Amino acid sequence: MINRHYLSMLQNKSVIRELSEYAARRGEEIGYDNVYDYSLGNPSVPAPQGFTDAAIRLLQTQEPVALHGYSPSLGLESVKEKVAQSLNRRFGMNYTAAHIFPATGAAGAIAHALRAVTEPGEEVVVFAPFFPEYIPYIEGAGAKARVVPAQFPDFQINFGALEEALSPAVGAVLINSPNNPSGVVYTKETLERLSSLLTEKSAEYSHPIFLLSDEPYREICFDGGSVPYTALFYPNTLTCYSFSKSLSIPGERIGYVAVHPDCEHAQEIVPMCGQISRGTGHNCPSSLIQLAMAEAVDETSDLSVYETNRNLLYEALTELGFTVNRPDGTFYIFPKALEEDSVAFCRKALAYDLILVPADGFGAPGYFRMAYCIDTDKVRRSLPALQEFVREEYGDRSLSEKQHEENKGK
Amino acid sequence: MINRHYLSMLQNKSVIRELSEYAARRGEEIGYDNVYDYSLGNPSVPAPQGFTDAAIRLLQTQEPVALHGYSPSLGLESVKEKVAQSLNRRFGMNYTAAHIFPATGAAGAIAHALRAVTEPGEEVVVFAPFFPEYIPYIEGAGAKARVVPAQFPDFQINFGALEEALSPAVGAVLINSPNNPSGVVYTKETLERLSSLLTEKSAEYSHPIFLLSDEPYREICFDGGSVPYTALFYPNTLTCYSFSKSLSIPGERIGYVAVHPDCEHAQEIVPMCGQISRGTGHNCPSSLIQLAMAEAVDETSDLSVYETNRNLLYEALTELGFTVNRPDGTFYIFPKALEEDSVAFCRKALAYDLILVPADGFGAPGYFRMAYCIDTDKVRRSLPALQEFVREEYGDRSLSEKQHEENKGK
Repeated sequence: MINRHYLSMLQNKSVIRELSEYAARRGEEIGYDNVYDYSLGNPSVPAPQGFTDAAIRLLQTQEPVALHGYSPSLGLESVKEKVAQSLNRRFGMNYTAAHIFPATGAAGAIAHALRAVTEPGEEVVVFAPFFPEYIPYIEGAGAKARVVPAQFPDFQINFGALEEALSPAVGAVLINSPNNPSGVVYTKETLERLSSLLTEKSAEYSHPIFLLSDEPYREICFDGGSVPYTALFYPNTLTCYSFSKSLSIPGERIGYVAVHPDCEHAQEIVPMCGQISRGTGHNCPSSLIQLAMAEAVDETSDLSVYETNRNLLYEALTELGFTVNRPDGTFYIFPKALEEDSVAFCRKALAYDLILVPADGFGAPGYFRMAYCIDTDKVRRSLPALQEFVREEYGDRSLSEKQHEENKGK
Repeated sequence: MINRHYLSMLQNKSVIRELSEYAARRGEEIGYDNVYDYSLGNPSVPAPQGFTDAAIRLLQTQEPVALHGYSPSLGLESVKEKVAQSLNRRFGMNYTAAHIFPATGAAGAIAHALRAVTEPGEEVVVFAPFFPEYIPYIEGAGAKARVVPAQFPDFQINFGALEEALSPAVGAVLINSPNNPSGVVYTKETLERLSSLLTEKSAEYSHPIFLLSDEPYREICFDGGSVPYTALFYPNTLTCYSFSKSLSIPGERIGYVAVHPDCEHAQEIVPMCGQISRGTGHNCPSSLIQLAMAEAVDETSDLSVYETNRNLLYEALTELGFTVNRPDGTFYIFPKALEEDSVAFCRKALAYDLILVPADGFGAPGYFRMAYCIDTDKVRRSLPALQEFVREEYGDRSLSEKQHEENKGK
């Protein structure tokens, strides 16, 4: 019989998708160059030449039977080895190939990691604001999301609320730093405090609480800063990575789970991912893509455009009186809307050809997300539209300033 | 907490994997050329040049941002269109792009199709002998396998047993023709009778029984024959295809679900697969691989070697007195072992460097599988070893002939 659950999911159209479809239709009317589309997190810079060259070289020089043959279900050994060595070199870890499970992007990595370290019915803690797809990943594993409210205005962890959430039913905690949608990077202090609390609660409940660290934006960090490597702080960490953003290849579906060598069941988790894969039909990422990625494992696209865009938008938004945290990384910025109903706010923006995403789905109603992985030229051209939108819909600067003052007081 | 179910799965080592690992170790001792490894279904002929050329051309000429960008979750429109047109041209169907869901090989296709057209707890009918991975696919969808015993000696459908199995709890029936492991192709008569029975039972139970047709070997058919296209016989058919065998690219993980345009919920099933994908982290196959496949959608590798190998092995096996059906297609042959315990039989064969797979996992104990997707030269060189194995372990031809006679009487 047709599955009623998945059939009913078709009724709930994603707001992001609806907006993105609107943007495409509007683009047909006025030219897509004139639509200030901040809806989608699709990288706008090319893959590094090293990736393209590696893929071409593999196709031109390798025996097709070997190149396109089945990857072992736990991944190509040479690829796992190169990923492990790269992480060890960069972060002082001591992974071996046996700790690396190649996956189809962070989506595949998180879906497998969640199934490996939770029992059905357990809770998985997520922190608002969060990537909305975390919910289907968690529910797909048979677990339940337990949302810890956002800590305003810095979007670090609200430890009071976390401690309350950490009941014995919690099997895992899922973090994302640099964060989609807030752009915040968790500080060392945040990670140390998180590690202490999880260690304490694991001991209290006599079972490990696993930490899943979703890090697709790890290489996009601004102001010369760097992102603390989560696994260094807590041994029961499964790092979920994607090359979608660092190599600008989201369509190629390549990433990994890296299991901390001192994690409980460290030797079993990657083989368990292989077993999980049998039921989902995931199998391994494309062999060609695994091999080309391994050749470019230490490269990144030129990611500097994202910092340029961040600077332009942060300055413009603060000048217009928005309450907004300055992103430390990613290509997202996450301001507070100028009215309580951020859906209404974003709908009004459409009249100015501004495509903004209300953050209700991210667990932070009243905020909105702008994905600034677009040409800097378009960001510049969007600023007068943004100004006009704010002035016409929400009055002149005096109102904005008043609100600005109010926000400061919070 | 660590997931006990997946952890416990690590104890059950797959027999095929164990044999394949033995073959690799033995290969290190005596040279892999001297190991007659019939264990794995890994194609041995190169991908068609058209596929390789298309992939290189895409990498050399397309803008990387567009080429490697996110595929829509339901697949790249141009790719879906080309697949639909190819099926319409070849089989007289009337698919549109909306009926095609690109998937990571047949594994991804079956895993999605099963979740779409069964409710948890329903039964899915499979026919012995069957590909052992059907069980994790079915269980991964929350359904239960209901095995219909094999019909000897022709391996068509045992309709008496099927009718008994078709209770109201059955949501779907999963067939595989050309068949792994028997090599049989279902005749038009078989498909007509299957269609009649499913139509009758669907009416009796007032709900559709969906037919999942797993067709990765569709292009490997011998003696100038062709494989009847299942969907032509029954509208509630979801065709699950993989290019792993036709293009010899199993590591690239590319295939599709094609939903019959007259299937119930035909317009919803592909979007439902997109929703299912959100929970499994499957997302779409690699963009580059989707596009290169679409350029080569009507091509195949030179598959003639499989027929040559089939002829050699069928002749040798029958001469040695094996009960064996002459495969119509695939690259498998499925003889009856020369003792009741086919595991013991296959273990004894190892001493002759023959790697044969006992068929207990395929739901047909007493039989064994040979995957002859290997060099013809190696097939030829394996024949004296096969002869020696049979003579030394099971006596001279007179015994075999006696058994041969017995088998004829069955």
